[in-house]
Amino acid sequence: MSDIYIGIDLGGTFIKVGCFDSQLKLIYKTSVPVEADIKPEAMVELIGRTIEKILADNNLGKKNLRSIGIGSTGQFNLADGFMISNPNLTSFKNVPLRKMLVERLGKPVVIDNDGNAACWGEYTLGTGKGVKDMVFFTLGTGIGGGIITNGNLMHGFADNAAELGHIIIYPNGRKCGCGQNGCAEAYASAKSTAKRAKEAIDAGAKSSLKNIIEKKGEITAKDVYEQLKAGDALAKEIADGTAEALAILCINMLHTTDPQRIIFSGGMIAAGDILLDRIKYYFNKHIWSIKPETVEICFATLGEDVGIIGAAALAQQIQKQK
Amino acid sequence: MSDIYIGIDLGGTFIKVGCFDSQLKLIYKTSVPVEADIKPEAMVELIGRTIEKILADNNLGKKNLRSIGIGSTGQFNLADGFMISNPNLTSFKNVPLRKMLVERLGKPVVIDNDGNAACWGEYTLGTGKGVKDMVFFTLGTGIGGGIITNGNLMHGFADNAAELGHIIIYPNGRKCGCGQNGCAEAYASAKSTAKRAKEAIDAGAKSSLKNIIEKKGEITAKDVYEQLKAGDALAKEIADGTAEALAILCINMLHTTDPQRIIFSGGMIAAGDILLDRIKYYFNKHIWSIKPETVEICFATLGEDVGIIGAAALAQQIQKQK
Repeated sequence: MSDIYIGIDLGGTFIKVGCFDSQLKLIYKTSVPVEADIKPEAMVELIGRTIEKILADNNLGKKNLRSIGIGSTGQFNLADGFMISNPNLTSFKNVPLRKMLVERLGKPVVIDNDGNAACWGEYTLGTGKGVKDMVFFTLGTGIGGGIITNGNLMHGFADNAAELGHIIIYPNGRKCGCGQNGCAEAYASAKSTAKRAKEAIDAGAKSSLKNIIEKKGEITAKDVYEQLKAGDALAKEIADGTAEALAILCINMLHTTDPQRIIFSGGMIAAGDILLDRIKYYFNKHIWSIKPETVEICFATLGEDVGIIGAAALAQQIQKQK
Repeated sequence: MSDIYIGIDLGGTFIKVGCFDSQLKLIYKTSVPVEADIKPEAMVELIGRTIEKILADNNLGKKNLRSIGIGSTGQFNLADGFMISNPNLTSFKNVPLRKMLVERLGKPVVIDNDGNAACWGEYTLGTGKGVKDMVFFTLGTGIGGGIITNGNLMHGFADNAAELGHIIIYPNGRKCGCGQNGCAEAYASAKSTAKRAKEAIDAGAKSSLKNIIEKKGEITAKDVYEQLKAGDALAKEIADGTAEALAILCINMLHTTDPQRIIFSGGMIAAGDILLDRIKYYFNKHIWSIKPETVEICFATLGEDVGIIGAAALAQQIQKQK
């Protein structure tokens, strides 16, 4: 067995760990629960033991392990490898995470935020393959993302580039969790899509979604797209609002970084063409007329493993740069 | 005399040509009128003769001339040095401008769009000095700009990055010349600022600006800021609208490329602090509350020569890259 790379997706409730070969083919993956108040030292030890167990279980030696990549929620100082804060990991305040992991593992470690790691995964092995300029969106509870420009991940001055869900598209519009009004995330994340439907029903709108709320106590974006397919008028209105917000985001990214491809990922893309075609429809409705645009708007292909794949791809990249 | 660089600002009615020393200090500049229907061959010859005259008039030899940089309006294929089209130069359609100039001048030539050239000038010698991540806006008839990320000018897939005036901030808002609705340019360029004031007066608003229209037949953004200083209520409302639009643009750029500094340039910044303080006020009003932001919003310092300075700085950069 030759070179091995580890990719880790550090979430709020689970650590996903993947073991990859030199072609970034997944050899083995596992998922370990974590408590939100886990201490940094305990987290580092947990990661260390998980990697050692994976290697042992797969008859791999530590000498084959080249490097480890981590994608995580939170704020970072990437140059120094610090996790400054993390809403999901309450004990992480200015933690020298990379240094701690390098000391525990004895291997190179690269850390990036989860949106960037997933973006790099999709760029390296997914829909972004062969493209040097791309924009990547994740549509989940919130809207995150990453930007590749001229083949490089954009990080920005404070490692805070590509906070794409917080681009304001409707100033003085809906309140976002971040404190701003009118963020794209307040309209078009999976959570906001469901929330807007729920609010409309609470305000008296007639909809087949009402029965689902009465049965389940809540609705999800999945319900909205299912009822849209079944012909529900409110579901259509809500889905149109989501698509229009995402289309405005696409136009604003086109005029900013001029990507060849804009890629949507995350749970909500399971809706399929009924979502993608709508985004394209509103893109064409709002885009300028002074020249034709050829940007490709499409869905990601790597699925739920994109986080560990991207982290492993980052791990491989730092080895190549040496 | 050692190395010399030529910087050219190719506008719709004038070609500005500057001659710079190796410290990018301006030695001499001139301005030559051009007709909108000038043929590419005639333009190349005009540029060639202008440069030769500058060198002769300043007792400089062609052997001292290292390279030529050009910033221009229009659409480009920068890798191949083609000007694809130019609204100001009607005979320019898919013109291999760089090749033609290299053949005429016998020196390396670099071409970029005017917003990028000015951005690179401000980055190299102006307010952007020492900063690796910045966003640059020009506030003139339209709103243009440039983006520096990790020390590099962003060009994008189709050399069309940083069309910042066409970021949509009010979907379904004011019609923009580009065909979109709600572009920042439709609110906050110098021209749109004056136009919004004129429209309000035409619709019956009381304002000291009305006297100016009656006297001059028109108003400019300069009039709006002067009447604001004199206490006119409509001028305040219009200036607030301009500043709020620019503040939303700043927030959206912060969440996209995460610059250390956002720099405004162009004729309208002559308004001074009454404009800058307003942009900062609305930035603070609309920005998220989840973490403090330290991005510096400021004005450019290179003034009207920024185009030729930036073009010369690009010329020097291609020499350094060799």
